[in-house]
Amino acid sequence: MTERRLTGPVEVVGAGLLGTSIALACRRAGLDVLLTDTSGENVRTASGLGAGRARAEGDVPQLVVVAVPPDHLGTEIARALGASDAVVTDVGSIKTEPLRAVAGEPGVARYVGGHPMAGSERSGPLAASAALFDGRPWAVTPHSTSAPEAVALVDELARLCGAVPVVLTPEEHDRAVARTSHLPHLLAVLVAGRLADAPPEHLALSGQGVRDVTRVAGGDPALWEQIVTGNSEAVLGLLDEVRGQLDVLIEAVSSGARADLGALLARGVAGTRAIPGKHGGPTRPTRSVFVSVPDHPGELARLFADAGESGVNIEDVHIDHDPGRPVGLVELLVEEAGAEHLLGSLESRGWVTHR
Amino acid sequence: MTERRLTGPVEVVGAGLLGTSIALACRRAGLDVLLTDTSGENVRTASGLGAGRARAEGDVPQLVVVAVPPDHLGTEIARALGASDAVVTDVGSIKTEPLRAVAGEPGVARYVGGHPMAGSERSGPLAASAALFDGRPWAVTPHSTSAPEAVALVDELARLCGAVPVVLTPEEHDRAVARTSHLPHLLAVLVAGRLADAPPEHLALSGQGVRDVTRVAGGDPALWEQIVTGNSEAVLGLLDEVRGQLDVLIEAVSSGARADLGALLARGVAGTRAIPGKHGGPTRPTRSVFVSVPDHPGELARLFADAGESGVNIEDVHIDHDPGRPVGLVELLVEEAGAEHLLGSLESRGWVTHR
Repeated sequence: MTERRLTGPVEVVGAGLLGTSIALACRRAGLDVLLTDTSGENVRTASGLGAGRARAEGDVPQLVVVAVPPDHLGTEIARALGASDAVVTDVGSIKTEPLRAVAGEPGVARYVGGHPMAGSERSGPLAASAALFDGRPWAVTPHSTSAPEAVALVDELARLCGAVPVVLTPEEHDRAVARTSHLPHLLAVLVAGRLADAPPEHLALSGQGVRDVTRVAGGDPALWEQIVTGNSEAVLGLLDEVRGQLDVLIEAVSSGARADLGALLARGVAGTRAIPGKHGGPTRPTRSVFVSVPDHPGELARLFADAGESGVNIEDVHIDHDPGRPVGLVELLVEEAGAEHLLGSLESRGWVTHR
Repeated sequence: MTERRLTGPVEVVGAGLLGTSIALACRRAGLDVLLTDTSGENVRTASGLGAGRARAEGDVPQLVVVAVPPDHLGTEIARALGASDAVVTDVGSIKTEPLRAVAGEPGVARYVGGHPMAGSERSGPLAASAALFDGRPWAVTPHSTSAPEAVALVDELARLCGAVPVVLTPEEHDRAVARTSHLPHLLAVLVAGRLADAPPEHLALSGQGVRDVTRVAGGDPALWEQIVTGNSEAVLGLLDEVRGQLDVLIEAVSSGARADLGALLARGVAGTRAIPGKHGGPTRPTRSVFVSVPDHPGELARLFADAGESGVNIEDVHIDHDPGRPVGLVELLVEEAGAEHLLGSLESRGWVTHR
């Protein structure tokens, strides 16, 4: 960016997880941030975290970010458009319904929808982090009459938060998230629902797979009720497709038609490969190196110091920590080419590795 | 364990991911391990990794572990029972079908089924690790005529691999994994299938949620075809339940019956909470501390050394590594009570933290 347009103040309406995280990112960039929330407690908490200050009389925002639940998006976007000449964006999970609600407003050219693809099962300002959006996609959804300078400002907000802007129309956005977010959520809910009254001795066999598949189903039902209802047309289209495929699956399993079952499974594999890499880039081949580490402060430091001596860069780390054992298992993900060297280097320093 | 019964040799039939991992764990415990595989290359690779030696004339195993694909379990278990007086177990994902295949064998009292709840999207001996089973459940499934000493030996194998044995009948096991593994897999496949021909600009909005939900759908279709077919009765019962719930969901969304939708979503939340903690124990409250770390060797070591100075124990670590940036973001998971102290301590040492 050669020219910086976003100079603030930025007003954040709704100091929950997303609003407060955006506020923290704006503060990190040195912008004046004004906080508004129906809950005074949320504003105090967010301020206390360094996310900005309560909006006062006479404050004039350059950009308003509406970060309220989906049901209230239309009302709050309209209110913000009427209250000043600021550019207005939002961070809601659905984009056509709130646009419909504000389409007749005189200032609608100043509205550009947005949707950062980041979140958490936790909610509220205490779960916020300026780093929440780092490297994540951030949908920017101008409508047909959005002013170009308003679009540029929202694009700049996304970049300032560390995200990667992806420009789509509101309609395209809603079809896209129906597929990449709402459908996965709803099917995770159906899988999780089958666990709710399962015998505990059956649940004892739960591995990492079922945990991963169902994790998102732990999200706030009140929020998801609004999201799904607000995008019902696109969601229903996909649910119908799934019902058709489920019938094919049931027929294949009950008749023992293994080729049909295999074709469905292969299509699933193709789908997992269609998802772009974590940051949109190509993935380098990596390998896991497992090391036993005594479970007390300082041991990880010693491990990383020793790993650092080997000169091999560590891409990711996972600690499998069992409260019932004095030793934890650390998984170091490194580039494939460096794995053997790292293993030898750690072993020569007395670490117990597992191949 | 006061008395050690498992003294070897242990024969592993099938030197793939699971077989080789078990072989490595047995070697770690000092046992003689005999390797058999229809692929001589797999045996050579596994031997090269230190997982044991090719079985030779005159070798007499104490325990045979059959680690072949589901379709071949019955044949290989029967062959092992006939070849010696060894106790025989297997690591297949389904338990009643292979038992049915060997029920008439004279040595069937020496057979006790097993199923470690661990795996990977990768396969083959090169993906193996002695640590694969650490802290994971391992179903041990004696049938009505299994000899108690055979059960004890298989239990000991599971513990030696670091796993937690969970004893179930073969029928209970198959009902349990239909719910905790096969159904999640199949619904993940249906979600992933919807991504296979989605427009790339829609897939650009993929966040962590859809990645988690669909990860398991990347598993080998040939293997899963066998698993699902071999457990079709239990799987079909659950697929029918899901079809019923899917109809309720479609009706709720299309008619705008938000209370019905909310009830389904709440049931999903209850299901995620029914899954026991990672190691079956209670979970301690933790908090994430985010730190920016320059992306080159040695910086993580410095971070962990500094974190170690604070005396706060790190429960888990996650590195969000963006190949396109010189700085990575490290998430440290620590006990809630120690988080503020750690943040202050790191900041005083010049680290950039994100709250």
